[in-house]
Amino acid sequence: RNLLRKINLKLLCTTENPADSLEHHKKIREDGFEIKVHAAFRGDCVFAVEDLQSLNAWIDKLERAYAEDYKEAEIKKIFDKIRTGKELNEGEKLKFKSAMLYELAVMDYEAGWVVQLHLGAFRNVNSRMLASLGPDTGYDSIGDFPQGRALAKFMDRLEKEKKLGKTIIYNLNPADNEVFATLAGDFQGGGEVCRVQHGAAWWFNDQKNGIERHLNCLSNMGLLSRFVGMLTDSRSFLSFPRHEYFRRILCNMLGNDVEMGLLPRDMGLTGGMVEDVCYNNAKGYFTMEL
Amino acid sequence: RNLLRKINLKLLCTTENPADSLEHHKKIREDGFEIKVHAAFRGDCVFAVEDLQSLNAWIDKLERAYAEDYKEAEIKKIFDKIRTGKELNEGEKLKFKSAMLYELAVMDYEAGWVVQLHLGAFRNVNSRMLASLGPDTGYDSIGDFPQGRALAKFMDRLEKEKKLGKTIIYNLNPADNEVFATLAGDFQGGGEVCRVQHGAAWWFNDQKNGIERHLNCLSNMGLLSRFVGMLTDSRSFLSFPRHEYFRRILCNMLGNDVEMGLLPRDMGLTGGMVEDVCYNNAKGYFTMEL
Amino acid sequence: RNLLRKINLKLLCTTENPADSLEHHKKIREDGFEIKVHAAFRGDCVFAVEDLQSLNAWIDKLERAYAEDYKEAEIKKIFDKIRTGKELNEGEKLKFKSAMLYELAVMDYEAGWVVQLHLGAFRNVNSRMLASLGPDTGYDSIGDFPQGRALAKFMDRLEKEKKLGKTIIYNLNPADNEVFATLAGDFQGGGEVCRVQHGAAWWFNDQKNGIERHLNCLSNMGLLSRFVGMLTDSRSFLSFPRHEYFRRILCNMLGNDVEMGLLPRDMGLTGGMVEDVCYNNAKGYFTMEL
Repeated sequence: RNLLRKINLKLLCTTENPADSLEHHKKIREDGFEIKVHAAFRGDCVFAVEDLQSLNAWIDKLERAYAEDYKEAEIKKIFDKIRTGKELNEGEKLKFKSAMLYELAVMDYEAGWVVQLHLGAFRNVNSRMLASLGPDTGYDSIGDFPQGRALAKFMDRLEKEKKLGKTIIYNLNPADNEVFATLAGDFQGGGEVCRVQHGAAWWFNDQKNGIERHLNCLSNMGLLSRFVGMLTDSRSFLSFPRHEYFRRILCNMLGNDVEMGLLPRDMGLTGGMVEDVCYNNAKGYFTMEL
Repeated sequence: RNLLRKINLKLLCTTENPADSLEHHKKIREDGFEIKVHAAFRGDCVFAVEDLQSLNAWIDKLERAYAEDYKEAEIKKIFDKIRTGKELNEGEKLKFKSAMLYELAVMDYEAGWVVQLHLGAFRNVNSRMLASLGPDTGYDSIGDFPQGRALAKFMDRLEKEKKLGKTIIYNLNPADNEVFATLAGDFQGGGEVCRVQHGAAWWFNDQKNGIERHLNCLSNMGLLSRFVGMLTDSRSFLSFPRHEYFRRILCNMLGNDVEMGLLPRDMGLTGGMVEDVCYNNAKGYFTMEL
Repeated sequence: RNLLRKINLKLLCTTENPADSLEHHKKIREDGFEIKVHAAFRGDCVFAVEDLQSLNAWIDKLERAYAEDYKEAEIKKIFDKIRTGKELNEGEKLKFKSAMLYELAVMDYEAGWVVQLHLGAFRNVNSRMLASLGPDTGYDSIGDFPQGRALAKFMDRLEKEKKLGKTIIYNLNPADNEVFATLAGDFQGGGEVCRVQHGAAWWFNDQKNGIERHLNCLSNMGLLSRFVGMLTDSRSFLSFPRHEYFRRILCNMLGNDVEMGLLPRDMGLTGGMVEDVCYNNAKGYFTMEL
């Protein structure tokens, strides 16, 4: 574990300077802004063990939970290969990523942080555009690879050691809604209300139809009333209105169900649920002392 | 075949005492109760070749049709290993399960019984709760593993030997509805009306949305009018009202289509279809002489 | 390349006599019929490297994009095996099919033709009926095998060599709609408006529900206004009314959205879009000089 922690910190430090990226958080605090703005740790960099020149390996294009079996000694050996610039084979990459993901989740658990897994993308499928524009320029798609097994194994391993903390699992392929909703249901308990959450419709699904499919699935196979609701990426200021969009879609769905007689005409009940999904649940779930 | 039959009976006998489990059936018959209550054979026990201590093997967690190629001599050898307490490897487990499933289906065919396959679950994904509460305590989920190939191969093998009898295939992942509905269509004939049926929305799908998705799929890609309808697990008396729930959903869907002008306003036609789906089709399909 | 072209022509020539199959096209032209009827090339025959007697190999039953890595020397060797009547192993079949698919796409690109890929079927799953009635007699189903990887790799390979031309990708499993719609989005550009299209609901999906699901997906994740619309198989004269059926479904969906206030009540906008989807887009997309 200590070795792995050191690996994490080293990788983190070589990727970017944490002090720099917290500059604006610091300024907000000094300005006396009344809303708390917390830092988050985006773990992608820790998994970037691929040589960016060799993009043939398909496995590097799949964004999924990694849950290969590994021994600590193997990870130490793999890390030595990384440090001395040797190329990893596919098995070693998988083991290393699996170890990193597991250790990050354990650290998040110990800090009371929330793990958020965004799964199911094919990344950089157009390698000509990748070469000319770089990654994250719009050449990704929804994937159709099986994910349930690795995701279940990842959470099960943490649960066995009583280290499974607050976790939100997001699926990109809407055909996987039901798998994610029911997997979340298998790992409840541990003192948290709805510890594992089936995360909001995301990326390509972040539109009326996608949000409705997710909410209906959660309502049928999970527990809508405990949902922590919409999220946004605070880097993109213009994405805040999606919270308003989400609230309207939620209210429209519940209102239609009331009109059709499928839900009781009880504003206290449904109105309270809307308040919980849009505010109270997230406030309770993300609360942490720093 | 004779060997396999003996294997089946032996396994069955060591699992539970058939005489005991039929005690209530016997009493019902002696009491002169006017409704026939038939015995059913739940084949799960025959597939329990795993050592429950070694839950690492993921394959044991997938509930699916098994259709590996095997030779009778191989099965004999595997059975000897089981009898002498030797551990099976994954390949042997698959072959053994495939042989058991095939032979059970042949026996069902010969007896005129209906085979019912409930496919697509991840079982016991939370191994901490499995260890503390045991199986069948709610820690299962919907799976996302491919199933079409094995299911098609299983039915094709029976069909080739003209031993494919009445079979109902149920899928747990609603994203697989269309695969199951169209596979059922490929194995019709053999003197039975809709011999292979795409079974009712089940488990997690046993709610309004899930039932509607199944019925719409059957209506679009199969033959709704020949559907044998809802089922229940007679052990759970409180589950009987789901038949009423199913009938209301079916009538609501057909009524809405009539209102929208998508079906003719012909009570004889749609009403007769409702009666068939809710009663007559099942009566004809499950009839057997004992 | 030259070798592969010769292979293609040879295989094509041994399968059918092109002159014969163009007899009716020729007559239409000579009769002075005012509508242009172009020839199309259906590439299936080029992929029929299986010995029809050995139908055990499942891979032959999957209709999917082939995108294995191969070297030209390997294909030459495989072709020599075919010509001398030697059986191919599964790896060789995959490589050969991958090479054929790639070369056909390059030729289509150079001729300005449109590649149309109909993916996702399980073919001939009932081998008893295949033996008695032959292929294409109705014993196929919707498949549930992953397709995104091979399809992305196939298009990526062409894109890298700037040989990706107009391509329409059709999925058979409606659960794959979102994968196909977003993959199409990753390969736009190259001077064509919506060069890669997510093709219309097809085969089992060619009904109201299937068409609506496809159009909604395209509208949410692609660009409905640039869709080239419905297609039909001109061999089956009675299938022409499906264009009328498609237009009514499209108009019904847009009209409902206008009624619900989700689209502006602007006949110029929505009416123009209907005209584009039903006529103008296809006219522009399929135009070619012969």
